Amino acid sequence: MLQKMTTNTDAIMQIEPIGTIQTPYDEKFAVPRQPGLADTPATIRFSGDYNQMDCFRGIEQFSHLWLIFQFHQAVERGWKPLVRPPRLGGNDKLGVFATRSSHRPNGLGMSVVALQALESVDGKPMLKVCGTDLVNGTPIIDIKPYIPYADAIDNAHGGFAHTPPATELAVNYTPEAQQQLSQHSEEFRRLVHQVLAQDPRPAYQKQASSARIYGVSLQGMNVRWQVVDGQVLVLDLNDRREISS
Amino acid sequence: MLQKMTTNTDAIMQIEPIGTIQTPYDEKFAVPRQPGLADTPATIRFSGDYNQMDCFRGIEQFSHLWLIFQFHQAVERGWKPLVRPPRLGGNDKLGVFATRSSHRPNGLGMSVVALQALESVDGKPMLKVCGTDLVNGTPIIDIKPYIPYADAIDNAHGGFAHTPPATELAVNYTPEAQQQLSQHSEEFRRLVHQVLAQDPRPAYQKQASSARIYGVSLQGMNVRWQVVDGQVLVLDLNDRREISS
Repeated sequence: MLQKMTTNTDAIMQIEPIGTIQTPYDEKFAVPRQPGLADTPATIRFSGDYNQMDCFRGIEQFSHLWLIFQFHQAVERGWKPLVRPPRLGGNDKLGVFATRSSHRPNGLGMSVVALQALESVDGKPMLKVCGTDLVNGTPIIDIKPYIPYADAIDNAHGGFAHTPPATELAVNYTPEAQQQLSQHSEEFRRLVHQVLAQDPRPAYQKQASSARIYGVSLQGMNVRWQVVDGQVLVLDLNDRREISS
Repeated sequence: MLQKMTTNTDAIMQIEPIGTIQTPYDEKFAVPRQPGLADTPATIRFSGDYNQMDCFRGIEQFSHLWLIFQFHQAVERGWKPLVRPPRLGGNDKLGVFATRSSHRPNGLGMSVVALQALESVDGKPMLKVCGTDLVNGTPIIDIKPYIPYADAIDNAHGGFAHTPPATELAVNYTPEAQQQLSQHSEEFRRLVHQVLAQDPRPAYQKQASSARIYGVSLQGMNVRWQVVDGQVLVLDLNDRREISS
């Protein structure tokens, strides 16, 4: 189990979210482990003093933005000095600061997204971005422009995570899933396809052949699927809100 | 004046530094506004539960690291929705989230540095990095590996800050400064040269021709200089600790 460790209370700083992001990913399991799903749209809305157009004046000049956010679903579970990155098959342990693990001191993440538009809704700012890998409802702590000459390091070497994960599985559908998906938007169908092609199974389950059925929640829909002969088979989908009511 | 604004107390998070960075830059004025001074060395030491080698296991696989830090010299002064970026000559106002201004909500900065070495000193970790643009004593909040495929965006467009600032001034020395510098290490002499070649004057003073004498503190030495005919002239240097004692 993860442990809370003692803190250095003298140096504690207080920070607060500036806003919240809305994404199609209802849970961490659904979030792609690579930023390749560039057409997954998301929306950021702001709160309090940050909810004014002035704060974002000129941001459209930039094609990409950094989001600093809180891993809000992980933060309660604390952190450990050593973690097992999925990229290493879940076997090797690395120091938490040698990884982008969400279970980390201070619980902050950073992620680059493409900026689509700054819109004004009733005079309040709304940022439309795409390519996000954040769970729906993630608190946003800061937004900074992506500065190519400073941030894009040509000759950087990325250790065990140098290249993107190569796995992309074929995705097939049962007749039932096909019929159900036909009632959804093309955007949602693409989302389901892209998320499952990334193979969201935990690393330690990818080796084993198993008939295990997984569920992943996307935009309020629970999508059930399994891996058959190395390919994803989508079984069916159900509205989570209907199930729980 | 910058104003403290009301905060959303419900959502406040507590975070704490994991360590502190030691750099040659004693004050913000000395810090280069571009990351080109790649051979400026810096050292990060850790505190409390973060001060153990395990937390950094495997970090040497990565050539570059992200530092998330606190703009500790700016944070007390609060923030404003609009700022005047030096890159725009200090005239145009942009939204704070369209800039990397240090006067920003939550006071967090991020900067990429090259990793030189992870050393163990009495069994405790010490990270040696270079290329930093942080003031000496800056609190470090998080360290993450630089992941090229996710962080280096090839086709990003950086608005007003797309390319590095072009100004690099010639640096000349008075006989007195030359004599004083000869008693310092070659590393220190290079630091003085590189920092002043970047022209640390505020944007609004760069246009005016003026005999104004500036002082910049580097590694505890106060270096005095002025701009003469578009070139930096280093006048002399004094040990700040001797002055103040």
